[in-house]
Amino acid sequence: MESITTRRLIPEALAEDIGSGDITTDNLIDAHQIGKGVIIAKEPLVLAGIDIARQVFDYLDSEIEFQSDLTDGHKAASGDILAHVHGRLAALLKGERTALNFLQRLSGIATQAASHTQILLGKNVRLVDTRKTTPGWRVLEKYAVRVGGGFNHRMGLYDGVLIKDNHITAIGGVAKAINHIRKRVSHLVKIEVEVSNLDEVSQALAADADVIMLDNMALPEIREAVALINHAALVEVSGNVTRADLLDIADTGVDIISMGALTHGAQAVDISMRIS
Amino acid sequence: MESITTRRLIPEALAEDIGSGDITTDNLIDAHQIGKGVIIAKEPLVLAGIDIARQVFDYLDSEIEFQSDLTDGHKAASGDILAHVHGRLAALLKGERTALNFLQRLSGIATQAASHTQILLGKNVRLVDTRKTTPGWRVLEKYAVRVGGGFNHRMGLYDGVLIKDNHITAIGGVAKAINHIRKRVSHLVKIEVEVSNLDEVSQALAADADVIMLDNMALPEIREAVALINHAALVEVSGNVTRADLLDIADTGVDIISMGALTHGAQAVDISMRIS
Amino acid sequence: MESITTRRLIPEALAEDIGSGDITTDNLIDAHQIGKGVIIAKEPLVLAGIDIARQVFDYLDSEIEFQSDLTDGHKAASGDILAHVHGRLAALLKGERTALNFLQRLSGIATQAASHTQILLGKNVRLVDTRKTTPGWRVLEKYAVRVGGGFNHRMGLYDGVLIKDNHITAIGGVAKAINHIRKRVSHLVKIEVEVSNLDEVSQALAADADVIMLDNMALPEIREAVALINHAALVEVSGNVTRADLLDIADTGVDIISMGALTHGAQAVDISMRIS
Amino acid sequence: MESITTRRLIPEALAEDIGSGDITTDNLIDAHQIGKGVIIAKEPLVLAGIDIARQVFDYLDSEIEFQSDLTDGHKAASGDILAHVHGRLAALLKGERTALNFLQRLSGIATQAASHTQILLGKNVRLVDTRKTTPGWRVLEKYAVRVGGGFNHRMGLYDGVLIKDNHITAIGGVAKAINHIRKRVSHLVKIEVEVSNLDEVSQALAADADVIMLDNMALPEIREAVALINHAALVEVSGNVTRADLLDIADTGVDIISMGALTHGAQAVDISMRIS
Amino acid sequence: MESITTRRLIPEALAEDIGSGDITTDNLIDAHQIGKGVIIAKEPLVLAGIDIARQVFDYLDSEIEFQSDLTDGHKAASGDILAHVHGRLAALLKGERTALNFLQRLSGIATQAASHTQILLGKNVRLVDTRKTTPGWRVLEKYAVRVGGGFNHRMGLYDGVLIKDNHITAIGGVAKAINHIRKRVSHLVKIEVEVSNLDEVSQALAADADVIMLDNMALPEIREAVALINHAALVEVSGNVTRADLLDIADTGVDIISMGALTHGAQAVDISMRIS
Amino acid sequence: MESITTRRLIPEALAEDIGSGDITTDNLIDAHQIGKGVIIAKEPLVLAGIDIARQVFDYLDSEIEFQSDLTDGHKAASGDILAHVHGRLAALLKGERTALNFLQRLSGIATQAASHTQILLGKNVRLVDTRKTTPGWRVLEKYAVRVGGGFNHRMGLYDGVLIKDNHITAIGGVAKAINHIRKRVSHLVKIEVEVSNLDEVSQALAADADVIMLDNMALPEIREAVALINHAALVEVSGNVTRADLLDIADTGVDIISMGALTHGAQAVDISMRIS
Repeated sequence: MESITTRRLIPEALAEDIGSGDITTDNLIDAHQIGKGVIIAKEPLVLAGIDIARQVFDYLDSEIEFQSDLTDGHKAASGDILAHVHGRLAALLKGERTALNFLQRLSGIATQAASHTQILLGKNVRLVDTRKTTPGWRVLEKYAVRVGGGFNHRMGLYDGVLIKDNHITAIGGVAKAINHIRKRVSHLVKIEVEVSNLDEVSQALAADADVIMLDNMALPEIREAVALINHAALVEVSGNVTRADLLDIADTGVDIISMGALTHGAQAVDISMRIS
Repeated sequence: MESITTRRLIPEALAEDIGSGDITTDNLIDAHQIGKGVIIAKEPLVLAGIDIARQVFDYLDSEIEFQSDLTDGHKAASGDILAHVHGRLAALLKGERTALNFLQRLSGIATQAASHTQILLGKNVRLVDTRKTTPGWRVLEKYAVRVGGGFNHRMGLYDGVLIKDNHITAIGGVAKAINHIRKRVSHLVKIEVEVSNLDEVSQALAADADVIMLDNMALPEIREAVALINHAALVEVSGNVTRADLLDIADTGVDIISMGALTHGAQAVDISMRIS
Repeated sequence: MESITTRRLIPEALAEDIGSGDITTDNLIDAHQIGKGVIIAKEPLVLAGIDIARQVFDYLDSEIEFQSDLTDGHKAASGDILAHVHGRLAALLKGERTALNFLQRLSGIATQAASHTQILLGKNVRLVDTRKTTPGWRVLEKYAVRVGGGFNHRMGLYDGVLIKDNHITAIGGVAKAINHIRKRVSHLVKIEVEVSNLDEVSQALAADADVIMLDNMALPEIREAVALINHAALVEVSGNVTRADLLDIADTGVDIISMGALTHGAQAVDISMRIS
Repeated sequence: MESITTRRLIPEALAEDIGSGDITTDNLIDAHQIGKGVIIAKEPLVLAGIDIARQVFDYLDSEIEFQSDLTDGHKAASGDILAHVHGRLAALLKGERTALNFLQRLSGIATQAASHTQILLGKNVRLVDTRKTTPGWRVLEKYAVRVGGGFNHRMGLYDGVLIKDNHITAIGGVAKAINHIRKRVSHLVKIEVEVSNLDEVSQALAADADVIMLDNMALPEIREAVALINHAALVEVSGNVTRADLLDIADTGVDIISMGALTHGAQAVDISMRIS
Repeated sequence: MESITTRRLIPEALAEDIGSGDITTDNLIDAHQIGKGVIIAKEPLVLAGIDIARQVFDYLDSEIEFQSDLTDGHKAASGDILAHVHGRLAALLKGERTALNFLQRLSGIATQAASHTQILLGKNVRLVDTRKTTPGWRVLEKYAVRVGGGFNHRMGLYDGVLIKDNHITAIGGVAKAINHIRKRVSHLVKIEVEVSNLDEVSQALAADADVIMLDNMALPEIREAVALINHAALVEVSGNVTRADLLDIADTGVDIISMGALTHGAQAVDISMRIS
Repeated sequence: MESITTRRLIPEALAEDIGSGDITTDNLIDAHQIGKGVIIAKEPLVLAGIDIARQVFDYLDSEIEFQSDLTDGHKAASGDILAHVHGRLAALLKGERTALNFLQRLSGIATQAASHTQILLGKNVRLVDTRKTTPGWRVLEKYAVRVGGGFNHRMGLYDGVLIKDNHITAIGGVAKAINHIRKRVSHLVKIEVEVSNLDEVSQALAADADVIMLDNMALPEIREAVALINHAALVEVSGNVTRADLLDIADTGVDIISMGALTHGAQAVDISMRIS
């Protein structure tokens, strides 16, 4: 699933780091010298991107051995070895930073997602991401969210209908928008509509929306909306949701909580490579 | 400077978001309908990427007018309008998320960098980034660091020599490594060497290193190193430096502090677009 | 929607036709000579791709004027002028074949689709395409189907779940497959399952499939399935459907008829360019 | 010969089908599960593209075994197995449609070409294609014509001179055009000129054209032209030639019949994959 | 004709020169500062590539004005101004080297070709290039040869048949090779065969070769071959031909002299840009 | 170091030569026929590009064996075998010209560089190249210069500061320019300034330039400058330096001589492939 992205991104990433040449390594390290090393977690983390790290070294030098029994989703403690590498030392040194940059960002997202979803354990609610991702990294970042136990909202504008206020204004009303689009989109796509008050909830219900997104509503209003909808549609809560809000929102009985910070608020975890 | 990256990244970013089509907008909005909107800071921020946002809309529809008198580096308050957009509504809606995703990440980096460099105001020290960047985004993220008042370490493996412990081990000693490489690299490139104790500092000095990087040293040892080097080389401190460490390190008299979190620890700032 | 494809495909198409140079035109036509011409329908057709033809000439020479008041979906008679072109004669001659190749194939698909959907006029059923498209042309061919009045099934493997017999076998049953996937995919995606007998229809119903595809069933069995499903799910009929079958299938009360020949069986319509 | 095209087209084709992921297979099929299948002709056909099908699976997963003793040009009966595939089931399912889409279109062209050339068996005439091909597919479609026993006209504007009426008008006469271009083009390229009456035939002959294309002439006029030319140049007949015309035209003694429908009028043949 | 190559090559060339940024100009020159300059011939030359130079600046900054009344083929004296440029100084400085690198190489080839063809003035013989070109530059270098008055041999392996000794050995004889290929290639392509002695000349004649290439023959043998062929085929001489050989070979009566040095032996001419 | 360039350039080079197919080989040589051959130096040369030649054949057909014990920098005599190739004859024939075109140009540069640096043997001076390279070939041509014993000046505008007269004028003086830029560029980059008289030399010295480039100065003035600088900065001489000037310039005591002709004045050496 991720391979279309990485076949493009790995060559770009190596080109941007190595450019016209690694002038330190090329001038110091004999091209035939063999080395080995380990990739190590420097803090507790949920691993994501181990196959991408493997592909980075493989792209540089197909004879490098990259050994790891771990798979994405593995919970590593600080100090754990994530992989062993063996092969031409020059290639190990040239690939190190790029491989780690993939690993540290994706594992950072997975680790944060795991921490957030942990809060919701046992609740009948999905924590989903948004389209607030790093340009060029959409598929990878959403993959890392899944690795951490989160779910994906639509991948892009192409695989789900989400009618927002601007659409509603342009077409002239919630019901009109829903009916208009249902006649046009593929029969395999559900229709979600963003509403900001209970009146719009009623309109969305009347027009048989598949999913109703409550945008920036307060908890009491969310509770009213859930009662009103009464399982006739899926209910999603959205709007600058923070970790501190998760449990309260979940307890309103909604089906889905979306949280942009799952991707745009994640920080890298610390992973390093040690040559020996 | 950034244009080579954005000419590649903007089409990729729009393709990954729009894919086979924006099924909501394409099915609801008349292709000829004109709309307008504003891009708004939702929290205090240092702006970075305003021209990239402009290019995103221009790539989608060259007739969109994107109006902004602001330039990168501008300090915006929450609620400030960053730009006005006017043109085909469908194109505004399709480009919105991608334009914001560039803005929010780059401004996030610039805002954090500005906050960190503020601490060092009046100190004779540079706060510099590292190569711990998002693959595919190196040039943009390092640009945002500069916008925020930080400085760049080398862009990649190609524009500066940094001899690390692995290189030293492979070639057999600090002095040998420096002398070996000086005979080979371009006369325009300086030679930096990473050292981890005072003995290595002395070796680096003896071999006339241009820059000496003190890796993960404690403050007292840094002070000793600074005294030992005594301006015969530039001194850089590196190794998981946090915001809390900045002032103490600066006071040791070093020339450069490098901090990976300038890029890998930055979070997006909140910026939104409102159609009216 | 089509622009991501055409920005890739138009340069490729011109490169494959012009290659190292149009040795006839480059050696005969003065580079400054101006010419004009018309693009003409040589048989009755439903127009599709007029903007792509415009883009072909624009890519070659941005000063060519391409004038057409027609939009895709227009029904043209034999002899109708579809567009006027004016500009450097050499560029008109070099772009002619490529522009026509786009127009003739897309209009061919739209024309056939219009002819087929005409049969179903007044019936409450959608005629939809499949993924049996020309590699590289998926988005364009499915666009032409819509122009001709047809509907699209999913665009690819990414924007809709279609559980086929191989998936069912691998996971161990219709119900198990549906339940398994519902827990994993985005809440915006519907679940369609392919069944080949009434027993599987019952299983799909029990597991709350959103869409049930009746694969290669005879008319009486289709009727039984429609009765059994009784609007609890959408019903799609699939499997080498020909023009002759359309009315009978529609009369069974199904919601959707899919037909691979909408794309893979279409032939080009005759369109030519006349320089004057 | 085809590899430059397929190295570009196969990744594009898989990207357009799989996009951000095969959400059915990725969520249902275990990544390690092994499967096997056969590719089967569902109607009589002339095979074309078997190596491209192999490359599609190989690109997705280099460990898939694709076994076929058949080569392009093989005549298969309905029900014949064209290839056996074995490997990761998920990859087989993801590559199936793309591999079949290549096979069905190329075999469709080869099958139709074989049927047409069969009519001309024993006649001393070539049936050739035109430049009326699917943009992006020129080299593949012309290859399939050859597989079916047809011949290729020029590949593009770059590998043969064909002076058309617009060129003649611009330069001022048949003879002038031929003489003008002979002094300029490579000595390895022949000069063909399109004529529409016997007077132009005489002019072309007088100017030593290598090939004379009779455009949309009636049979009696073609016969006169053949007599007039009397082997001093190759004679080609062109202009909406249909299958029904072939034998009559061949009997006039012309050397070449060109037929756009060889590519733009071909329909896919029915080929499917069965997993077992 | 050249535009397909330059649309690829100009962005590549600028990327390889500017890379992650012009650190001198970006740090010294105000982004709004306007400048002007001239491009000057520093030695006598035949101009080639003036439009490419224009495109280089246009790609960098579409507001730069590039003024030149000259066209390729113009003979410039030392000191002549070839073009005036006006616009943002930073862009002028960044594009200077790349624009000049195109101009100096192409003009170098054109200048040398003009000098060589001058020798053959009045002789009925073509001086043609070979496929010994700089990878990636085939179309441009062959264009520059034409600008200088030379002719092109085939562009590549795709637009002309040239049967070499290895082909003859593989197929078993000159005549067999010619007959074999004539039945297969397009009717628009001529057949050239390489021979190394008079016996092979006779075989080629008997098999009706269109062009006979005399490979590395001495002048007396060339004369014999010309007499033997007696205008029944075009005659080409090939094999490390130098400037000193040209006149003697021409006087043997051959039609074509091919010379690899037209491209691989050309040196850049001196062209510079002066900002004022 | 060269691999980023060759992964782009080799496919482009093969595409430009083979295009829509090698119509000679494809029509004459059986696809299964095996052949072998040798690559031979036809004149004395310094080898450069042997691995690129290997990659050309490997890209075309990964089963070709390319055997060579030589490495770049090897001095070959006329007639020496540089490599043995074995594999499908058709692939050997199709790759021959492209592989040789890389080898002949890179070895040509290396051979000339070796000849020039030979003159400077024992002198304490570097002979360096410039940015006057063939667009798209920068990294390869500069590599070949190193193979021949020369050194590289900066790779592009991104990895070294070179303040030229236009920069100085714009900013208002040598010292101002140096001070301005030192505050902005990375601490790893040296600052070189171009001067044209002794007064500017003094200014550059006063501002602590790292490298001072004497542009087009006469020998006596160079000697004065060297004395004035007295090892406080590196001294480079530049400006249409020819082979005849090298020794005299070296004897002035400068550190670096830059010579554009190292790349733009190099001619290919003669290398051929013989199939047996």
